[in-house]
Amino acid sequence: MLIVQKYGGTSVGSIERIKAVAERVVNTKKAGHDVVVVVSAMAGETDKLISLAKEISDMPPEREMDLLLSSGERISAALMAIAINKLGQKAKSFTGRQVGIITDTSHTKARIERISAESVREALQEGIIPVIAGFQGITETSEVTTLGRGGSDLTAVAVAAALNADLCEIYTDVEGVFTTDPGIVPNARKLEKISYEEMLELASLGAKVLQTRSVEFAMKYDVPLVVRSSFSDKPGTLVVKEDRDMERVLVSGVAYDKNQVKITIMSVPDRPGIAARLFKEVADANIVVDMIVQNISIDGKFADISFTVPKADKDKAVEITEKVSEALGAKGVSVDENIAKVSIVGVGMKTHSGVAAKMFETLAKEGINIMMISTSEIKVSCVIDSKYTELAVRVLHDAFELGS
Amino acid sequence: MLIVQKYGGTSVGSIERIKAVAERVVNTKKAGHDVVVVVSAMAGETDKLISLAKEISDMPPEREMDLLLSSGERISAALMAIAINKLGQKAKSFTGRQVGIITDTSHTKARIERISAESVREALQEGIIPVIAGFQGITETSEVTTLGRGGSDLTAVAVAAALNADLCEIYTDVEGVFTTDPGIVPNARKLEKISYEEMLELASLGAKVLQTRSVEFAMKYDVPLVVRSSFSDKPGTLVVKEDRDMERVLVSGVAYDKNQVKITIMSVPDRPGIAARLFKEVADANIVVDMIVQNISIDGKFADISFTVPKADKDKAVEITEKVSEALGAKGVSVDENIAKVSIVGVGMKTHSGVAAKMFETLAKEGINIMMISTSEIKVSCVIDSKYTELAVRVLHDAFELGS
Repeated sequence: MLIVQKYGGTSVGSIERIKAVAERVVNTKKAGHDVVVVVSAMAGETDKLISLAKEISDMPPEREMDLLLSSGERISAALMAIAINKLGQKAKSFTGRQVGIITDTSHTKARIERISAESVREALQEGIIPVIAGFQGITETSEVTTLGRGGSDLTAVAVAAALNADLCEIYTDVEGVFTTDPGIVPNARKLEKISYEEMLELASLGAKVLQTRSVEFAMKYDVPLVVRSSFSDKPGTLVVKEDRDMERVLVSGVAYDKNQVKITIMSVPDRPGIAARLFKEVADANIVVDMIVQNISIDGKFADISFTVPKADKDKAVEITEKVSEALGAKGVSVDENIAKVSIVGVGMKTHSGVAAKMFETLAKEGINIMMISTSEIKVSCVIDSKYTELAVRVLHDAFELGS
Repeated sequence: MLIVQKYGGTSVGSIERIKAVAERVVNTKKAGHDVVVVVSAMAGETDKLISLAKEISDMPPEREMDLLLSSGERISAALMAIAINKLGQKAKSFTGRQVGIITDTSHTKARIERISAESVREALQEGIIPVIAGFQGITETSEVTTLGRGGSDLTAVAVAAALNADLCEIYTDVEGVFTTDPGIVPNARKLEKISYEEMLELASLGAKVLQTRSVEFAMKYDVPLVVRSSFSDKPGTLVVKEDRDMERVLVSGVAYDKNQVKITIMSVPDRPGIAARLFKEVADANIVVDMIVQNISIDGKFADISFTVPKADKDKAVEITEKVSEALGAKGVSVDENIAKVSIVGVGMKTHSGVAAKMFETLAKEGINIMMISTSEIKVSCVIDSKYTELAVRVLHDAFELGS
């Protein structure tokens, strides 16, 4: 098999950890597999570099941030290659450029446009273990770019796709994907297998095991993923195409996200095009709106529009909304920071009805008010008062019998 | 004027220092000059990376060391560019690759083969201050290389030559080139001006202000250098082509080097080709021999051959010498680690006689025995017992009236 192994920051967080990972890599090689390694920066390194830059400027140019931050992964790639060589296997480090990872020019959150991996293929043919610095690429004009938080996951998946690898293993400090946060629900169960679609919902809903874009990429190119721990030998969670087994499971997991705020624009005259105008301006500011609800007032002439955005974008979003509110003659803008989104996810929902109803019922039984609802084929999300987050997660986990 | 300013590790050793240097750069720009900045890694950073690698392996592959160590300069280049931008001037970081510094493939001590600097020239035309990560280049096949200890000096000089700059300023933590080590001779005087040739002798003799190869490069391409401190506004020392003024000065400085050992192969049969064989084998091991002395024994049949090598190469050199000694039927090999080389340097020597005699006399008067002597047009070096180093430097500095 050709296996791409990606090791996250805590997995390479110290010299001891790097040596331990090198042994795992060498053992995989000795078991007869071809291995490609992708590494993140050593834990804490990226934050240290960011804080150095912030000491100098609160708005450092993004181009410079990319050169700065890409160094962390280069350091761990070199150290890992040294560690593997020390164990008697040939290994060679590769930068994003040397792999041929070409991105667009959006510094700090570049998107991969293509990837040649020719040099990596050649190294494999010579029996060498390639060790790739994750998180980075270059533009057509040879500028250094980075792929955003968690970007090393994307590097691993993209390289696996380019090499047509049999498996892409994502090593982290948890043992896999759980039915929910074990910190909240002690009997949360590790999932053996999950579909890309479910993983995507779980990742974007705040279960921070895998970067969202890396899952999209894996799904698009059909790269089988395994999420597992580099601190143990347990098997982890397989992320693959949906299959028959999965459809029998109604709900795979319960996710939550406390990182959003709700903004409401009150008593807007209810005319066509109002919502369009508001959300166009928000989108132009590069703010991603998650959920939207519109309530028509009793006399049918005025509407309240509520929507949620990431906490980091709160100030910008409020500013825009206030400007629109004034222009439209609305009553004003209110902000609610004490909200949380709780979601149930499962491909089985497609073919089973009553899942949403059961969710609402379960929350109602506990006296938890639902402020907003959104649904997709494989997910139902409810925005609730954030103080009920843990309670909601626990009762939903129980109601859908997810525990072990 | 077009000025290349190179800042060493202590000059960019902290965020405060980086901000101070950014101000100096901006002031130079505001004074109407075009500025190109070259930075070293933050003080201590390179050593920290080396020690991480050494924790993993005592013989890390040199290719991996280059990727590892080149990160230090990339980090300080990005931070410096951020700091200059913060002060309202446009600045952009450049890696060795982005500058187009093409080297040979000798990892960890690569030689620059050519340099395009096209992108740097374009940035200057747009009014941007280029900030170049020193110490690094790439090979034809896009491998990352580094230029050896002090390599950022070489980057600065090479860039200055490529851009045909009017001046290359080397900023460090000392105020210039002194007649000798002020730590030993308190009245050592800062030189206003010194020739490339003298600087070269002083640099290679252990006065660690400028990397030897960077001086050679500056001489070859006639780049005027200034060595000065980034911690003060004092003018520093100008390093230029020899001129009439200089010839009037007999001796410019006294240098010393405690970093060599003397190896002696005793009672070698005195046949032609013996020395050739020994030094060929030493050279094949990439060891640079500095001084050589051969003493013929009284009966004319046997000779003692002594030579000096850097301390770091002692073990390898002794091993080779012992092998040769056995093969030749010599009496054995002895090693003396307690030696020092003391040298006087000055272009005036070319046209004045009696300088060497005065040196020998001065040392003799203090009862300092001279073990080996070597001379060049502008230098006389003596190997002495290392315990007399400071004494010798002091009396020579006095004898040639170098003090202020």
